[in-house]
Amino acid sequence: MTRKELVKQINMKGSFLCVGLDPVMEKIPQSLIENVDKHTRHSSDDDQLTAIRLLTFNRAIIDATAPYCVAYKPNLAFYEAYGVGGIVAFQLTVRYLSEFYPNHFVIADAKRGDIGNTCKMYARSFFEGNTTVDALTVAPYMGEDSVKPFLEYKDKWVVLLALTSNKGSQDFQMTEDKEGERLFEKVLKKSMEWGTEDNMMYVVGATQGRMFEDIRKIAPRHFLLVPGVGAQGGSLQEVCKYGMTDDCGLLINSSRGIIYASSGEDFMDKAAEKAKELQQEMTELLDKNTY
Amino acid sequence: MTRKELVKQINMKGSFLCVGLDPVMEKIPQSLIENVDKHTRHSSDDDQLTAIRLLTFNRAIIDATAPYCVAYKPNLAFYEAYGVGGIVAFQLTVRYLSEFYPNHFVIADAKRGDIGNTCKMYARSFFEGNTTVDALTVAPYMGEDSVKPFLEYKDKWVVLLALTSNKGSQDFQMTEDKEGERLFEKVLKKSMEWGTEDNMMYVVGATQGRMFEDIRKIAPRHFLLVPGVGAQGGSLQEVCKYGMTDDCGLLINSSRGIIYASSGEDFMDKAAEKAKELQQEMTELLDKNTY
Repeated sequence: MTRKELVKQINMKGSFLCVGLDPVMEKIPQSLIENVDKHTRHSSDDDQLTAIRLLTFNRAIIDATAPYCVAYKPNLAFYEAYGVGGIVAFQLTVRYLSEFYPNHFVIADAKRGDIGNTCKMYARSFFEGNTTVDALTVAPYMGEDSVKPFLEYKDKWVVLLALTSNKGSQDFQMTEDKEGERLFEKVLKKSMEWGTEDNMMYVVGATQGRMFEDIRKIAPRHFLLVPGVGAQGGSLQEVCKYGMTDDCGLLINSSRGIIYASSGEDFMDKAAEKAKELQQEMTELLDKNTY
Repeated sequence: MTRKELVKQINMKGSFLCVGLDPVMEKIPQSLIENVDKHTRHSSDDDQLTAIRLLTFNRAIIDATAPYCVAYKPNLAFYEAYGVGGIVAFQLTVRYLSEFYPNHFVIADAKRGDIGNTCKMYARSFFEGNTTVDALTVAPYMGEDSVKPFLEYKDKWVVLLALTSNKGSQDFQMTEDKEGERLFEKVLKKSMEWGTEDNMMYVVGATQGRMFEDIRKIAPRHFLLVPGVGAQGGSLQEVCKYGMTDDCGLLINSSRGIIYASSGEDFMDKAAEKAKELQQEMTELLDKNTY
């Protein structure tokens, strides 16, 4: 998907919400599990049953939230943990999205990063074949040749870790060099030599508050993928105040706050409700945007 | 596997070689592919055929090289690129190793790293269930809570990226802070507060030469996993001169130089030969070790 298409979706929907699809078997509503199991004949195959359970949950969440969001972000950890069944669920989720919601931007949150020839293999996984996503999160520690192979695909995006939402972001990302430049700033500057505003975004945690001001000094127009609103405690208002660009430039991710809004039979309604609440708040913020 | 057990294997074999299992379908000897396909009935299932091809290649390489090495390192990129068939091949390779070569140390090279609750899911993938490895490579960018969940498993190891073998290692890892401390040094020091010499190793590229001296000033006894000998041009002699400890403290990885030593029917012999050459060189280096 191109930047222009993404921005069009944001404006049409009045939303820049990304829903994180991080299924945890123990948190999937029991009623859904029971229904799936009742209707699955080949329950002797563990992988198949796992795949169907996870996929059914994801499909329900997607159907419930699609009107209110512009992007989905499955995190690979939550699929790999379930072995082959999990990987199948990931693949089928991506295919479901491309078939029924082709206008939603899909980010595989895998935080990959390796030497060049290895990254080419990772790029194949996510950007080639019949299970392709629009974007992949990438870790910057290994530098240029660990990022560039992902930028060689037309209309595909790298979402590079810059300043993350977690406590550990303080350990290395904030380290200042001799000129007072912090590591995340160096990552921003350096990586701008590799990609453009049309194929690179950055992860910046909502918990970083006014740091968005500093980020925008270096990357005034790049899209930022912002986790940490909701369960992690970041403020949507503050992120928008300091982070929004003329064409929005933000994708705000919420995972747990939406997909586990309820563990009862009403989980789809509750997920829709939470997503709608965020969408309405976002519509207001977009209307007020005076960038 | 414990450090003591690993060191015992190194001394018994006179080898600290780790063989990288990075299968690329186009590089697997044609003769092996033809043989596999001839004996696989269900060739209509692509995933199954892929899994059997990759697994058969890995088993051949393992059987040929096991006497000369103490560790194997499958890189996940080379399995994920082949979808479900690739993941199955990875799992069956790990199970084959644990069944027939339980004294070999197995490192899943996946360079993972995410927020705490996500890392717990990754830890499940690699350290729980019936496909468990001894160690996982982890990227440090996200700091403490992205590493610690992996350290909570008995006799399992984190292999943290410190100073990698690729050109891009110069982009951020060498950045000096105000006190002149480079980022990889900060990563070493900080991470020593999280793990010990018995559950944490570091990746240091063989291409880094005399930097091993600096690494050893900070981490005098930690095991180092050293890629970059062979295809990437690092010197085994130099790595040992500056990096070896009293109980060796090194695992030298070679992937392409061994597993693709020949693309003919003699690929097992050639792989064994290359591994044996390295083993013999390593035996001499261990004998000369005057640490």
